[in-house]
Amino acid sequence: MASSSVSFIIIIITTVLLPSLSSQLSDLFPSNNPPPFLGKHSHPIKQPNHHQQYHYETRYFSQPLDHFSFLDLPRFRQRYLINTEHWVGPSRSGPIFLYCGNEGDIEWFAVNTGFVWDIAPRFGAMILFPEHRYYGDSMPFGSKEEAYRNATTLSYLTAEQALADFAVLITNLKKNLSAEGCPVVLFGGSYGGMLAAWMRLKYPHIAIGALASSAPILQFEDIVPPETFYNIVSNSFKRESSSCFDTIKNSWNALMSEGQKEDGLKQLSKTFHLCQELTSVQGLSDWLDSAYSYLAMVNYPYPSNFLMPLPGHPIREVCKKIDGSPAGSSILEHIFNGVSVYYNYTGEVDCFQLDDDPHGMDGWNWQACTEMVMPMSSDRNTSMFPAYDWDYSAFREGCQEDFQVTPRPRWITTEFGGHDIEHVLKSFGSNIIFSNGLLDPWSGGSVLKNISETIIALITKEGAHHIDLRASSTEDPDWLVEQRATEIKLIQGWIDNYRKKMKATFEI
Amino acid sequence: MASSSVSFIIIIITTVLLPSLSSQLSDLFPSNNPPPFLGKHSHPIKQPNHHQQYHYETRYFSQPLDHFSFLDLPRFRQRYLINTEHWVGPSRSGPIFLYCGNEGDIEWFAVNTGFVWDIAPRFGAMILFPEHRYYGDSMPFGSKEEAYRNATTLSYLTAEQALADFAVLITNLKKNLSAEGCPVVLFGGSYGGMLAAWMRLKYPHIAIGALASSAPILQFEDIVPPETFYNIVSNSFKRESSSCFDTIKNSWNALMSEGQKEDGLKQLSKTFHLCQELTSVQGLSDWLDSAYSYLAMVNYPYPSNFLMPLPGHPIREVCKKIDGSPAGSSILEHIFNGVSVYYNYTGEVDCFQLDDDPHGMDGWNWQACTEMVMPMSSDRNTSMFPAYDWDYSAFREGCQEDFQVTPRPRWITTEFGGHDIEHVLKSFGSNIIFSNGLLDPWSGGSVLKNISETIIALITKEGAHHIDLRASSTEDPDWLVEQRATEIKLIQGWIDNYRKKMKATFEI
Repeated sequence: MASSSVSFIIIIITTVLLPSLSSQLSDLFPSNNPPPFLGKHSHPIKQPNHHQQYHYETRYFSQPLDHFSFLDLPRFRQRYLINTEHWVGPSRSGPIFLYCGNEGDIEWFAVNTGFVWDIAPRFGAMILFPEHRYYGDSMPFGSKEEAYRNATTLSYLTAEQALADFAVLITNLKKNLSAEGCPVVLFGGSYGGMLAAWMRLKYPHIAIGALASSAPILQFEDIVPPETFYNIVSNSFKRESSSCFDTIKNSWNALMSEGQKEDGLKQLSKTFHLCQELTSVQGLSDWLDSAYSYLAMVNYPYPSNFLMPLPGHPIREVCKKIDGSPAGSSILEHIFNGVSVYYNYTGEVDCFQLDDDPHGMDGWNWQACTEMVMPMSSDRNTSMFPAYDWDYSAFREGCQEDFQVTPRPRWITTEFGGHDIEHVLKSFGSNIIFSNGLLDPWSGGSVLKNISETIIALITKEGAHHIDLRASSTEDPDWLVEQRATEIKLIQGWIDNYRKKMKATFEI
Repeated sequence: MASSSVSFIIIIITTVLLPSLSSQLSDLFPSNNPPPFLGKHSHPIKQPNHHQQYHYETRYFSQPLDHFSFLDLPRFRQRYLINTEHWVGPSRSGPIFLYCGNEGDIEWFAVNTGFVWDIAPRFGAMILFPEHRYYGDSMPFGSKEEAYRNATTLSYLTAEQALADFAVLITNLKKNLSAEGCPVVLFGGSYGGMLAAWMRLKYPHIAIGALASSAPILQFEDIVPPETFYNIVSNSFKRESSSCFDTIKNSWNALMSEGQKEDGLKQLSKTFHLCQELTSVQGLSDWLDSAYSYLAMVNYPYPSNFLMPLPGHPIREVCKKIDGSPAGSSILEHIFNGVSVYYNYTGEVDCFQLDDDPHGMDGWNWQACTEMVMPMSSDRNTSMFPAYDWDYSAFREGCQEDFQVTPRPRWITTEFGGHDIEHVLKSFGSNIIFSNGLLDPWSGGSVLKNISETIIALITKEGAHHIDLRASSTEDPDWLVEQRATEIKLIQGWIDNYRKKMKATFEI
């Protein structure tokens, strides 16, 4: 009888208190934007081609602003980086390696995509890094200020237009070089990987194959469960330390309580060494969210400098700090010590700015508010983040407020498919590598099994966000060396097959 | 020696006189527009669903005007015709037959595509005829007047937008009917056939197969020789009668001479029974050009009423008139008697209007001036039309003058491919029937050989422009009965395969 009463009380607590608690906590959760691939709170220092290890020429190509209408619009200059040093040229049908520029400055992607530079010489390949429109130096209307002025000027920032840019650029370039017979191989990571895979689907005549690394092309509508992303982030912490996971999970409540106290925001700003005093808990909670998500993405096994300078296995280091904070520290001090590994590994930061956008990534927010609607939830039990159920209406309202634009949440799957991707890819696609590291939270939205003999899923248990695209290093673990070797072999196979077909055609 | 002099003189005449002659004659040739699939000078009477032989409901669907930007534009109502009478519904994964509406009123295509109506019952299929934007009743900006006002309002009249309309409409409709599992089969003739084939390439997840009848997807850039079209028209006349071919070939000169005389235009207007007096020879020459081209397209073996009421084998009848005109008739009277078979087979016309556009097809001129740039030449020797070399600059200037728009002559092949269509289709496509009648002048720009086990070219020697899409008739020749039976078998195969795959998925 007593036991039954207790159960009853627990049920009451569960059903009455938790929703109320969670409705507070869920306010912390960035409801109108899923975590961008790259965004706020990543590396504060631009790192263009340190030591000039990669040589390229910077060129510009005049593009129509709208490929799909005939409005009389100003053209824009698309920047692209080109290296022909190792290219064996049209006579030997030298390959063209094209990296599908994504949401940032193309120079930054060029220096962070060492794989392409590493392997181009052995293939005798030309290297091309075209920039994505509305990023870096490829601004419509002459400047970023003009391009980002409002929803009208931003309206041509879409994936379809970017794909058409690549198609038009490469067609033109090949014609000018009499290189029509040279096979194009696409590379891309993250959103760039999505572009590479979609390019292969939509423009099969333009390129012979694509390495789509960490490309979550299934992270739309209801194709994968919306909890997927945050579950993977959370598991990456849990596998290092379950007490670390618990501390983070409990910290949101502490954060909320502290913020509600008199002088709470001031105290929080002090605890987290912020340069400016907080005006709401939200900004701080976003800052923490981002750190955890990015840490999961770049949870590489060796020191890296992709988003931030970080040690190898950075989540392990974060958890060491969280778990090993001095006795008597508050839970929020534990958290601060942990995220300092992400935000201040070099120890050079005196105070933290919550709003920085060093890579000019905020175009992604526009893309997320228009086409790239990726439903995200945080599960009450399995996620270490505040519980949150995807709320499309709230999301839409946020977009209308921020950009005066209404999202089209079902457009991407209408345009590119997704619900029956296996059937479609099996019948229609060929020569795509979907590579994913299972530590990467975006891996859950990608293609994780082989679809046909030429559509291959390369999975690495210990890999993170498109680690395979990074330059090879003496610290590479064996599985990474093997993964890259497989990729090289597959790409070589595509090129060999292409040349065989070409030869057969000529001989007829 | 005498003989050698004669040869010499002939050579002189050939090389000196002909260019000058041809430079006059080529002025007759419509240099800024290739012959539209359907256009001016076709049937003057709208024939909507005579006797109501086909039953459908007319519905409207709200579409974004621009699928590829997020400009805040007014949506428009796309009309579609729907018949669910025979549909076996989602529980039995009943197929959806979708005709890709092309450049005209969709009701007109519905009544002229009897094949779809004929076969739907045996497949338990739903029938859908969505209208192409900017045609019929599917006008952006509320009215044809507004939609066709200028290059700005017309700028969203493109094939890519039309394909996206189809994709969005069918996705929405299937969702509303819980019919996501129902396979869609595409049908299309002429430009509609191009849309069906391109839809299969660009939206393989939307439909399981396409019957692309008389779809000249290769009539772009330099993929097929520009003389192809007029050579086929000319051969269709030559095979009936070489004197008929010669008379037509010689008539342009006669037309030009007559036009240059004092009162020549008046005389020509009289000879050709025109309602208004000619202001230039060009209008009359266009009128004749069109008749010959359309006659070749609808050179069906039985009486038909597709563009005009016509006898069976209409070119044979035209040539009979041309060859059999009373002794003493002038060459232009011969011609008039011939084209009267086309323009006045019923004998009801008292005088001819040169400018009529009964089907509202002039949107095609916009499309031809933007994306659908199909180079057309007329060979000095093999064509019965005035010699003409494709002149892109003149074409472009014409478009700038007519529409204030600059064509993008290489866009279609960039967007849809074409140069290496065999490789691309072989690796990427499946389930497409390219059906062509070799009498059809558009057949030369289509796919005329099997590309894979599922991309099939169905060729009929005696067929003309998408004759297979017309309703079956007791007059159908055996080859046409056989062709349609093959098409039905192939479509059945696509559906069977699809159901097998669905079943396999469920059983896993």
